[in-house]
Amino acid sequence: MIIKNVQTIDASSPEGLDGVRMRVAIGRAEEAPRFVLRHFTLDAGCATPRHAHWWEHEIYVIEGEGEAYTGDGFKPICAGDTIYVPPDEEHQFRNSGSAPLKFICVIPHID
Amino acid sequence: MIIKNVQTIDASSPEGLDGVRMRVAIGRAEEAPRFVLRHFTLDAGCATPRHAHWWEHEIYVIEGEGEAYTGDGFKPICAGDTIYVPPDEEHQFRNSGSAPLKFICVIPHID
Repeated sequence: MIIKNVQTIDASSPEGLDGVRMRVAIGRAEEAPRFVLRHFTLDAGCATPRHAHWWEHEIYVIEGEGEAYTGDGFKPICAGDTIYVPPDEEHQFRNSGSAPLKFICVIPHID
Repeated sequence: MIIKNVQTIDASSPEGLDGVRMRVAIGRAEEAPRFVLRHFTLDAGCATPRHAHWWEHEIYVIEGEGEAYTGDGFKPICAGDTIYVPPDEEHQFRNSGSAPLKFICVIPHID
């Protein structure tokens, strides 16, 4: 068993995006065989890229307020929400509040 | 994309355990192809079963205070902790605080 607090994990900025920090908590380094648990922090006004890819997202919103882009436009998300993004569906997440938006996002191994 | 708040999901009690509630947020019903995102609430003093199985757990602690059983005994867990339980490793989680212990637990499809 490996226990670690997310705050002890080094953060990276996917695609160099300002105000978006990703922490890989459980993945290949922990010898997890199937999927990867990542922790995201989006500063106020910041967003992830709008894109689509072959893998799914399974998300839990920890705190903050934001919006999720779907084919139907943006929909509100908040703490306690779970979000399923199927494979190949275009999506984007942005922080529409004044505090950080934090969520867990699980994906399969993609490398 | 499917967005739902965990509080809107019906809860079940794994193995009929008192004070342990599981909500399956994303799984086969959502046509998720690979893994299942579940939300657990343990009331004060309550615990999950001590067991081992072929599948891994990838966990994020949302709120509360508890302890995780490993081969080395119980270790403290709290909000912001991530926990990786490898396949076939004995484990158990219990609430050692006075408020509910809540966590996300992701597993592969097991049925």
